[in-house]
Formats: sequence, structure tokens, C-alpha cells
Amino acid sequence: MQDEAMPLIDSLGLQFDESMFPASVPFRAFRGWYEKCQITLVTNGHDDVYGTGVDNVGTVPASLATYLILQKLNGTADIVVNAGTCGGFKRKGAQIGDVFLTNAVANHDRRIPIPEFISYGVGRINTADVSQLAISINAKVGICTTSNSLDFHSVDMSQMENNDASVKDMEAAAIAWSCALHNTPFYGVKVVTDIVDGDRPTQEEFMENLYRASSSLQEVLPRVLNYFCIHL
Amino acid sequence: MQDEAMPLIDSLGLQFDESMFPASVPFRAFRGWYEKCQITLVTNGHDDVYGTGVDNVGTVPASLATYLILQKLNGTADIVVNAGTCGGFKRKGAQIGDVFLTNAVANHDRRIPIPEFISYGVGRINTADVSQLAISINAKVGICTTSNSLDFHSVDMSQMENNDASVKDMEAAAIAWSCALHNTPFYGVKVVTDIVDGDRPTQEEFMENLYRASSSLQEVLPRVLNYFCIHL
Repeated sequence: MQDEAMPLIDSLGLQFDESMFPASVPFRAFRGWYEKCQITLVTNGHDDVYGTGVDNVGTVPASLATYLILQKLNGTADIVVNAGTCGGFKRKGAQIGDVFLTNAVANHDRRIPIPEFISYGVGRINTADVSQLAISINAKVGICTTSNSLDFHSVDMSQMENNDASVKDMEAAAIAWSCALHNTPFYGVKVVTDIVDGDRPTQEEFMENLYRASSSLQEVLPRVLNYFCIHL
Repeated sequence: MQDEAMPLIDSLGLQFDESMFPASVPFRAFRGWYEKCQITLVTNGHDDVYGTGVDNVGTVPASLATYLILQKLNGTADIVVNAGTCGGFKRKGAQIGDVFLTNAVANHDRRIPIPEFISYGVGRINTADVSQLAISINAKVGICTTSNSLDFHSVDMSQMENNDASVKDMEAAAIAWSCALHNTPFYGVKVVTDIVDGDRPTQEEFMENLYRASSSLQEVLPRVLNYFCIHL
């Protein structure tokens, strides 16, 4: 979201570049250099109907923004990093504030119980190898399961378990799908704001820990950038 | 889906036009003329991972295909018609084979229980005025609620009722969102394959009635085209 992105935009000195997206979409791109890397930071903006306090979240804007920015960059993007917050599963070792890197993504709200469509619905995508990055930045590694809801119910929980998820978010699987269309490696960097298999409602914990998780994200992203600007 | 679209493609004599989509996406466009209207018929293709029997369904490919074709048509598209099958609510008068036109769309699988995000999650969009078209083709009119699942559970049902849905599908709200970005009127034409608030699983009824509903769609779409090619 824009508020989460602003500290990084400021610290990297990125500049808003209106030429990166068509005028018809609300997405915003900020560009600049960090060491030898050209950075294009994208936020999904907000929907005019709901106002500036309501950022575009969920899979539909995320996949479209990713597709369009990769189309615009026309083969020059080496990687996509999807940085954001997530819920974490304590049974997979997740704690509030932890940084997780994805080794795969999947969907848990695309149930299509026709035999040949089941796997399509889950839409699992193995993402880039993060084993060295995880050591470098001292992050955990796991599967991110995506849905369009912040909360979940028992059917979702069952699907998230089937997906063997360590963390849960609202965009990763859709962003990775658009990356796959462009053959661009996807890296998910997710900071835990709430415990999915704990005893408190997601939205309560989410709001309570958003600031702490955002700070954790601000701290880890420069280390991710350092890693890639040396290794790539 | 491609199989559902082929009879119409054949009867209108539409030709596959590979220039309409970038090579990076699986979507397919077929073009031609019907009376004074230039028709661009889009199917979402299939994912290479899952093979030709598994069409791309759900909101993410639907919104991207819609966005890209409207971008390509660059302001020359007068309307978008989203033709397909749906589940119908008998409490709203739906029966198998009925044709429904949408007067609004909404989502029932985007639950974001943070006060300012609730309406964004539902994402209701009032769609084009279909009152005259409904009379002309003898269709019913109602709200279409969208999710990425073919089935539903009790939480979905509650959200679908909150959305005051007459029919349920897997794409309309996402397609209408991309249409709204381009200020292009959206018309949903949905044929009922199964009864959502009946006593049989969606997937059973869906498979059983898909052929009948597809035939109904083949019968009604030429009448929709006749209406627009006279009235627009």
C-alpha cells in the first residue's frame, strides 16, 4: 500500500514516473537507481469510488499492475519483488514480525471441483530459488497462499493447509501468474502481521501489528536490494 | 470458454486475429462484422501448464483479457458483452436455462472486515441500463455476484444474499471493473446452468446442464447482437 511504500520511496529517492502506466489505471510507479540496479517501485493506487484511504488490494489489480509494468519494461525487468505483509502459520514456525521468502505460491479461494480444473484453481507456481537469499537476510522460507479475503473460514483453512502454506496474503499468486506470463522471476518478501492459526481475528491483529510489520519490511527491503544488486 | 464460443464464432464467420493480444498472454480474439457492428470475440484461452481442456476461468485472467482488448481497441469499443453461464437463485425466480441480464455486479469472496475496506471488497458496480434489452430479448434482470470458486459455502451464501444476487458467476465483477477503467459500458448476458439455492451440488448440475445452457446462449446472443446493431 502507498503508506507502507513511502518510507522506501523516500529513502531510495525514487521519483514518480507517470509515463510507466496508462492513464486509465490507478497504479503508480516510482523509479530511480540503487547501486547498479534500476528500481521501479509500483503501488496499486486507490479506486476513485472509495477514496485515497482505500488502496487497491487483492488479486485483480495486482495481476493487472504486474502485467502492465512488465509489458512497459519490455523484457528489461530482471526480477519482480512482491513486498508486503501477510498472515503466518504458527504450525510452520511463523511469529509476528518474521520475514518469509516464498518458494511457491498457490490460491485457496479458487475451488473448482471438476476433476481437470482442481489444480488450475489452486494454481500453484514454484517461485524463484530463495535459498541463498534466505541465508543472506536471515529469513524463513515457505509457501504463500493467496485469496481475496483478509479473513478466512473453515473451508479456506482446509485449502490453506492443503497448500502447505507458511504464510497467507492477498496478492502473491496473482502477481506470480503475471510474472510467469512474462517469464520474469518472482520473489515474495512477506512480513507477518498476524497469526492465521492463532486465536484472534485477523483484522484485529493485522491493524495492531501493521506498523511493526511495516517497520520490519523497511528494514529488510534494503538488505534484499543489496543482495540482488551484488548477485544479479 | 472456447468450446462454448465456437458455434458463435462459426455462425458469424469470425476470424482469429493474432494481432489483438500480445504473444505473452493466452487470450484469443476472433473478429468480423455483423450488420453494421464490428465484433471482437475474446476467449481466455488455456494455461499451458494445465492443457487445452482447462480454459482460463476466474477473475484474474478475465480482468486482464478485458483490460488488454479495450486498450488495443483504443476507445473504439462501444460496449462489452460478457456472455456465459451462471448459477441462478430460485428465490429470485431463476430456472435452469433462463437468460439473465445484469443491472449490477459485485464480489462475494473479497471479505475485508476493516470498516473502510468493506465496500471496496464487495466492489459493486452498477452496469449498463438493460431495461429495453430485457424486453427485446425476453430476459430476466438482476445482480450478478462473482467469486473465483464454482462451489460455495455458508459464508459465501451469506455474502451472495447481502449482494442481493439473482445469479452467480466467476468473472463478471472483474470484467466490469476493467470496463470501468476504460469507461466502456458492460453488459452481462448469463444463462443459468444450476440452482445455487437448490439442493444439488453446483458442479453436478453445472456439468449436466452445460450443453443446454450453451445452446440457450447460442440462441440468445444473435438476438443481443440484433438489438445493439439496430440501437447503437
